[in-house]
Amino acid sequence: MFESITVANQAITKVISSGQPVLVDVVHAREVIDVLAGEAKVLLHAGPPITFEQMTPPMQASCVGAALFERWAHTEGEARALLANEVTFSPCHHHDAVGPMGGITSANMAVLVVENTVDGNRAYCTMNEGIGKVLRFGAYDSEVITRLEWMRDTLGPALAQALRLTKGGFALTPLFSRAITMGDEFHQRNIAASALFAKEMAPLLARIGLDPSTLADVLQFLSDTDQFFLNLAMAACKSVMDSAATIEEGSIVTAMTRNGKDFGIRVSGLGDQWFTAPVNTPRGLYFTGYSQEQACPDLGDSAILETFGLGGMSMIAAPGVTRFVGSGGFSDALATSDEMAEIVVGHNSNLPIPTWDFQGAPLGIDIRKVVATSITPVINTGIASLEPGVGQIGAGTVRAPLACFVKALEALAVRYAVAGTVPGDKD
Amino acid sequence: MFESITVANQAITKVISSGQPVLVDVVHAREVIDVLAGEAKVLLHAGPPITFEQMTPPMQASCVGAALFERWAHTEGEARALLANEVTFSPCHHHDAVGPMGGITSANMAVLVVENTVDGNRAYCTMNEGIGKVLRFGAYDSEVITRLEWMRDTLGPALAQALRLTKGGFALTPLFSRAITMGDEFHQRNIAASALFAKEMAPLLARIGLDPSTLADVLQFLSDTDQFFLNLAMAACKSVMDSAATIEEGSIVTAMTRNGKDFGIRVSGLGDQWFTAPVNTPRGLYFTGYSQEQACPDLGDSAILETFGLGGMSMIAAPGVTRFVGSGGFSDALATSDEMAEIVVGHNSNLPIPTWDFQGAPLGIDIRKVVATSITPVINTGIASLEPGVGQIGAGTVRAPLACFVKALEALAVRYAVAGTVPGDKD
Repeated sequence: MFESITVANQAITKVISSGQPVLVDVVHAREVIDVLAGEAKVLLHAGPPITFEQMTPPMQASCVGAALFERWAHTEGEARALLANEVTFSPCHHHDAVGPMGGITSANMAVLVVENTVDGNRAYCTMNEGIGKVLRFGAYDSEVITRLEWMRDTLGPALAQALRLTKGGFALTPLFSRAITMGDEFHQRNIAASALFAKEMAPLLARIGLDPSTLADVLQFLSDTDQFFLNLAMAACKSVMDSAATIEEGSIVTAMTRNGKDFGIRVSGLGDQWFTAPVNTPRGLYFTGYSQEQACPDLGDSAILETFGLGGMSMIAAPGVTRFVGSGGFSDALATSDEMAEIVVGHNSNLPIPTWDFQGAPLGIDIRKVVATSITPVINTGIASLEPGVGQIGAGTVRAPLACFVKALEALAVRYAVAGTVPGDKD
Repeated sequence: MFESITVANQAITKVISSGQPVLVDVVHAREVIDVLAGEAKVLLHAGPPITFEQMTPPMQASCVGAALFERWAHTEGEARALLANEVTFSPCHHHDAVGPMGGITSANMAVLVVENTVDGNRAYCTMNEGIGKVLRFGAYDSEVITRLEWMRDTLGPALAQALRLTKGGFALTPLFSRAITMGDEFHQRNIAASALFAKEMAPLLARIGLDPSTLADVLQFLSDTDQFFLNLAMAACKSVMDSAATIEEGSIVTAMTRNGKDFGIRVSGLGDQWFTAPVNTPRGLYFTGYSQEQACPDLGDSAILETFGLGGMSMIAAPGVTRFVGSGGFSDALATSDEMAEIVVGHNSNLPIPTWDFQGAPLGIDIRKVVATSITPVINTGIASLEPGVGQIGAGTVRAPLACFVKALEALAVRYAVAGTVPGDKD
């Protein structure tokens, strides 16, 4: 028991800033996620709990893709019948996992295994599929399924084998520290971290005895996939925020996520409970031929990055992104991060941002500050088409809705009032 | 003949900003540099012309290393006797080449071949050896020679073979454009461009049939060598500035270089003539155990980067570098580039810098502006130890001496007065 919420928050942010996430393996999801290991048909999804019927069209389409990938069905019609009647759905977050956009994760998909070596807990995330037609945005034609099979059968095992040549895995903290000085905020932009990861894995991959053509394919995929590091970052942030959440005190946000219907947050002093409010719809720039009207409401577990202090919170690290998401130039990026600094309790000294005069990334979103200022976290995000099968149509930013922070603060007030041990400290 | 110096300068800067440098090959220097192809013992060096006796100790030591590498001698004593009596020295710049620090280039060293595909002219530069004991800083023990042999026999041929799988080579302009948004100014910091180059070459290297161990060594070297892109950038800038120099009018600097004794510049309206003044000594931060007293005077052809508008000119692109070279934080980096903008005629629209609110890199140093303002180019540089064999002891910045710009402007006044066709236009 800490003497005050503020002291508890300091302990939590120390856990966040001293996290040591390490990529230790790549496996099939069923090997590490119990609920996917049995005979029952289960799919994990992004966000707080939701039913198949409540999902947005692209998220439902991702489920269709997963059903086809798992060979539960051979046509979309078969798949939809099955999804409506036989499949159980559960949030990734309930199983130490996170998933991008729809976040649909099934038993035989390859998942990254990231361990926060400080605490020994692990987090899982599927691998980034690249751009264009991809499952996470609701595409499910044969190109998508074939790629998922290749990732399961070739890319995943190759990375796993290469990781066995390292001493205990591939440490991700140094990559965060380097790439945040290279224009990455790790949500919309991971080009530096992905390039560093690709070039550092390349010599390991060369030593595991793949035939030259397969090796070239693997290296080409890593080279082409500028967002490959996004999913690594998600798993890394999840592993660290789950460590932080073991301190069951304070007012720090330990998860933020969206399922296309609800935005959900978890708070350190409030256990695993989700506090939800209807999601907003991202605003931003659209690819040629698409517009705001076609934008799917906010979606995905990737807001775990903002929870950790990256993405929109660290916009100033990536002024290039501000333009890409339609939010102006350098001074706008600066204004965004300066605003975000008002709702956190400190700065992450392991992530100094040169463009912020070496201030660290924002550290520890405090729901008390969010409610007091009505400033909600800015989240950088891809924008999916509402129409299934179309995929990504743009990129932009979206605000977390204030209502979920208000609900959480009310619950926190009740908890501490009941407990009667912590005064309503002011800071 | 242009109607004014200003109009000529516009033509020159258009050539600079529209350059398309492409890495087309890696060969032994003797295959492309005529003066190295014969029986005579010739070494190329950085900077304007200099004799062996006049060279700084680390530059002489680089010559010793080259003599050992070429097997002209087997001991330092033999090498020094030979260098004092039998070897001919010539500037890299006189042979379409550039060299880092000492810039010592001999017949059998591997050199990058970069073609400015707009004009078809080529430039050459040795490959970056990495850090620690390296020839360019005056080290020449067996580790150094063995690495140069490996670069000649393995790394160079592997890259050359991989390039043959591309359509016409590896285009460098896209890498400049991307990496300048990733914290590289390409002189002190090339980590982004080097990572992008390494990860994009990796799949090509996997396809050329190297045995796995050799392939892994090549990929490891590219992964470890964060400054690998520096020498590519030097050759690229040389190829483009040589194109610019074919416009024999105007007042734009087409080369800046230093030999440890003299700083030399060439100017578009003044042909191949060097205008020189004594070099300054860099100031900056030193590795543990070293200090300013041990710093070797300014050295190397790498100031071709600043001539093109990168390095110290684009300090704002790499605020991380400002700290590394002991020049403060973000606002100091901004102040440096803002000052440099006063002595150039424009901005390079192919190199927008996010941290400069997307202004392009400084474009076209105008000697008239340099003399009028007394602002001389800032050059980012490594610092060599004066003592031979020690190598790099720090990193810092150095100013080009004003006197060489004054001399050049006097010559330009004479030339245009004699030619009598261009009024002393004011801008």
